Amino acid sequence: MDNLRHWLIGPPLPTLRLAEERLNKVRALAAFSPDALSSIAYANQEIFLGLVVAGSAGLAYSWPIGLAITALLGMLALSYFQTISAYPGGGGSYTVARENLGTLPGLIAAAALLIDYVLTAAVSLTAGVAAIASAFPALWPYRVEIALVLLVIITLANLRGLRETGTLMTIPVYLFLFAYLSMLAIGLVRAFIDGPGSMAVTAPPATVALTSILILHTFASGCTALTGIEAISNGVPAFKRPETKNAGITLIVMAALMGILFVGSIGLTHYFAVVAGSNETILSALARRILGSGFPYVVVQVATLLILAVAANTSFADFPRVASILARDGYLPHQLSQLGDRLVFSNGMLALAALTGFLIVAFNGDSHALIPLFAVGVFLAFTLSQAGMVVHWIRQRGRSWRLKALINGAGTATTLVTLLVVAISKFVEGAWIVAGLIPLIVFGFHSVRGHYQEVAHQLTLRGLPPSLKPLAPPRVVLPISGVHRGVLEALRFARSISDQVTAVYVETNPAAADKVRRDWAMWVPDVRLVVVPSPYRSLIGPLLEFLDQTDREHHDGQQAVVILPEFIPVRRWQYLLHNQTAWLLKLALVYQRRQLGRTRVIVDVPFYLRE
Amino acid sequence: MDNLRHWLIGPPLPTLRLAEERLNKVRALAAFSPDALSSIAYANQEIFLGLVVAGSAGLAYSWPIGLAITALLGMLALSYFQTISAYPGGGGSYTVARENLGTLPGLIAAAALLIDYVLTAAVSLTAGVAAIASAFPALWPYRVEIALVLLVIITLANLRGLRETGTLMTIPVYLFLFAYLSMLAIGLVRAFIDGPGSMAVTAPPATVALTSILILHTFASGCTALTGIEAISNGVPAFKRPETKNAGITLIVMAALMGILFVGSIGLTHYFAVVAGSNETILSALARRILGSGFPYVVVQVATLLILAVAANTSFADFPRVASILARDGYLPHQLSQLGDRLVFSNGMLALAALTGFLIVAFNGDSHALIPLFAVGVFLAFTLSQAGMVVHWIRQRGRSWRLKALINGAGTATTLVTLLVVAISKFVEGAWIVAGLIPLIVFGFHSVRGHYQEVAHQLTLRGLPPSLKPLAPPRVVLPISGVHRGVLEALRFARSISDQVTAVYVETNPAAADKVRRDWAMWVPDVRLVVVPSPYRSLIGPLLEFLDQTDREHHDGQQAVVILPEFIPVRRWQYLLHNQTAWLLKLALVYQRRQLGRTRVIVDVPFYLRE
Repeated sequence: MDNLRHWLIGPPLPTLRLAEERLNKVRALAAFSPDALSSIAYANQEIFLGLVVAGSAGLAYSWPIGLAITALLGMLALSYFQTISAYPGGGGSYTVARENLGTLPGLIAAAALLIDYVLTAAVSLTAGVAAIASAFPALWPYRVEIALVLLVIITLANLRGLRETGTLMTIPVYLFLFAYLSMLAIGLVRAFIDGPGSMAVTAPPATVALTSILILHTFASGCTALTGIEAISNGVPAFKRPETKNAGITLIVMAALMGILFVGSIGLTHYFAVVAGSNETILSALARRILGSGFPYVVVQVATLLILAVAANTSFADFPRVASILARDGYLPHQLSQLGDRLVFSNGMLALAALTGFLIVAFNGDSHALIPLFAVGVFLAFTLSQAGMVVHWIRQRGRSWRLKALINGAGTATTLVTLLVVAISKFVEGAWIVAGLIPLIVFGFHSVRGHYQEVAHQLTLRGLPPSLKPLAPPRVVLPISGVHRGVLEALRFARSISDQVTAVYVETNPAAADKVRRDWAMWVPDVRLVVVPSPYRSLIGPLLEFLDQTDREHHDGQQAVVILPEFIPVRRWQYLLHNQTAWLLKLALVYQRRQLGRTRVIVDVPFYLRE
Repeated sequence: MDNLRHWLIGPPLPTLRLAEERLNKVRALAAFSPDALSSIAYANQEIFLGLVVAGSAGLAYSWPIGLAITALLGMLALSYFQTISAYPGGGGSYTVARENLGTLPGLIAAAALLIDYVLTAAVSLTAGVAAIASAFPALWPYRVEIALVLLVIITLANLRGLRETGTLMTIPVYLFLFAYLSMLAIGLVRAFIDGPGSMAVTAPPATVALTSILILHTFASGCTALTGIEAISNGVPAFKRPETKNAGITLIVMAALMGILFVGSIGLTHYFAVVAGSNETILSALARRILGSGFPYVVVQVATLLILAVAANTSFADFPRVASILARDGYLPHQLSQLGDRLVFSNGMLALAALTGFLIVAFNGDSHALIPLFAVGVFLAFTLSQAGMVVHWIRQRGRSWRLKALINGAGTATTLVTLLVVAISKFVEGAWIVAGLIPLIVFGFHSVRGHYQEVAHQLTLRGLPPSLKPLAPPRVVLPISGVHRGVLEALRFARSISDQVTAVYVETNPAAADKVRRDWAMWVPDVRLVVVPSPYRSLIGPLLEFLDQTDREHHDGQQAVVILPEFIPVRRWQYLLHNQTAWLLKLALVYQRRQLGRTRVIVDVPFYLRE
């Protein structure tokens, strides 16, 4: 087991190496930007699908919608740049909203973030598979399987640890940037040579009217292009020193690249009047228009797949981090806050991988079906985070705080408007799922924290007398299924801790009971054996009654210790052949009869079988 | 839990009532015959589907094939009648083959039987759903779901116990007999009035040539009509006294009814030249031809559904019985031999229900796909059982043993030939699955028995010195996660059984470790605390090393007892928030480190949380 694990995810790393595990700007861009950069793959597709139903008149709107989203991008980049400098320890929406707006907004932001990280992973993987299936249609029936294989690969890469992840992810990210920037440059040259295309010629006839609702709906879908822009501000501590400066520069570079890719691809699609069929993505159609169907086109599609696949990496960097912060604050189970062998939050990663796999299977690997769930959480987190920053500047009143508050205020306003547009226009299609999940998750956070606080209260030593009254030596009850070596071993242990040992046998068959009585008298005549009849053949019920009865008879206020001999076989399947009664008895004693309120100690005495 | 269970399956019954739970002939016919009687539903359908591809020339063979199968039925009924009188204790194929031919043939027969009981349940349920979907096509998309609901209902009915099962099943069986016998009578009258139909007119054109292979293949499929005929001979002890006579009479009545239904339905189908479309079963088409599409037709289809649904009951009566016999002989886990609360073998029933549900889902509720797996096991068990009877008579040499051996010999020969025909002609379509499973199951039987024998050998007290050397008082190690009431409770218990107690804390964070040291010194200064550093943040590894080290330091040949404080929360979901480390430690200590070969006693000290 351990060997397999080490081969898959590498040997453990000591805690001291935590400080070393930092990213330079080139690697950080590769680690945090794939989601943001690759968003154009599904955002362009959603804009196209949203408008094409209204024919050429509809598709004419792709350009203004693209520009509006790019303006939003600029606004968000500026806002998050401010967040980075204000929160060098990592200014995730949760932290910012919680510190400035209060606990509830913080938890809402956290719930939205967790949902979005899962959706980012699921949408990226499925959109990546769609990109490659545009180039190789034979892969289409295996979308779900391919997406799941990619998920497993990415999960393993992330369990290996942050820096090695960075190395692995660098190649696809820069390949993608190289391929797309080259394609856009060639496209520009082509645009000068070929001149514009005409949507009136290429677009299919309109099937619905062009309404402002249709345009808003498309804008909402297109806003998925902005997902991932906050990743860097959450991950500031992962940067090499000086973290703030490096993270800020990386954010600006990333936003500029996002803008170029988005405006460039939307613009060229519009200029060439490119239209995609039902078995192709719009970006694939654009690439084919510019590059033909040869090798360069395949490189672009492969690069799209790869960056979308590693975009899931943004989630693997951030989901466990947010979960660990929540766990440290007591809102999620403690074990999510434990750094694993490889200095990564392994438990959070495994949880993320399981949820993502579930979404991929449940939505049958279709990114278009997942998109309506996607943008609500993103913009909810954006809005809360920006609003928190406004409060932050107003409270702090540092240098030029008015300007800073104004910038974040403008960010709040635009993201809030976008949130409303997205939530209303996508509500029926799936936004309701997220809108319903967020309160549930927040409720879950509160329940977990409430439980931990209650437990801490019950466990506190405050008010306890300085020395507890010692317990009397325990009485021991040993349920037996017969007289054999396993029982005698358990009996030896029982006698080493107590001189009040009682064996108890449940009689379901009188003949067998007589044999047990005879064997017992021969081997351990000095220990009391009680045979309990069981007319209904149940084993557990009579044992529980016997225990209650002995406890009542002894007025020591203690419950008898129960010793359970347990067979430990060599092979796993052999567990099916043993111990069922012991397990059921333990279940009944410890977990189902808690109302008794007194401590029932259970002792497992393993008996190792040789074969 | 218990209340729900009692409401669903009734209150427990005492062992003394076992003798009362017997069936009279009317109820026994209802309990054991549904599989046999209802087989005509799928057998007729398979004969039709097998021949229709060869057009009217092919369908002309349905009548001779039907007669051949009926002859086989007579032969088998006679053979099993002899089995009943020779084995009043229940002459299942397993018992007969094992006693007369040896262990291996017995186990092969048992494996074949277990497979067939599962297939009977799955085929009956899916064919029943097909019958009702012929009448109500709107149900077609929900075949799997309907079949699973029926499975759940039948499972619960069987868990209630044998006699009540009989009551529940009587109505559908006699409704089916009434409906079909009436239909056949009306059909006979119609035949005199209307005169014969012509296959040349009604049958679709042939798409394949009529070959002898096609005819043999169809014969093999039609032999599924014979499934279930052995049920009574397995279940003799369930009959009222005199068991042998009652069972024999019931067998003859059942076989006669089977013959009438099969010959009658095949004959009328042939005479009227009835042909079914792709969305209807051939029996449904016959019923429509005789009765029209009104209320009587619907009654016939509903009765078909009901008897096929209760046909699964044959499996629920026999699968757990065979499994319990195998378990008593040590070939299956012991718990399958335990009579449940309601004097039925609950574990075997649950296993059967799970396997049947799996088959229904895996084969998408299509009985036609399941049929090829079906007949191989049936005829394998028939052949072994008949051959065993031949040996039985030869060995016993009672009155007219020659005649009896001759009858069973003829049975052996015909079932063997049928087995070969079935296995070869259906091999590619699915018989290979069963042919492969049977050796695997037999191997499993041997492994289970080998393990139990080996364990009995290891547990025997023979050769043990009459009194074992007592153990020294145990050393106790208490791993702690902090200093709190749960730990102090565990410590109180530890001190009540030992005066050598050591607490051990794994340090993953130096600041927390200092606090633990201070708190410990304040609350329990008289107990030794060891703080173990863990540079890799692992909790389990350092604990295991510490335990090994203390055991080496003490030369008492014993391993320290490990006390694990365990939180028992009020609600189930709260288990997610606690005890992970304790469970992992127990797993590592008890199950993964068995090679140490010495007994490591684990003590659970539960701490009951109030909220």
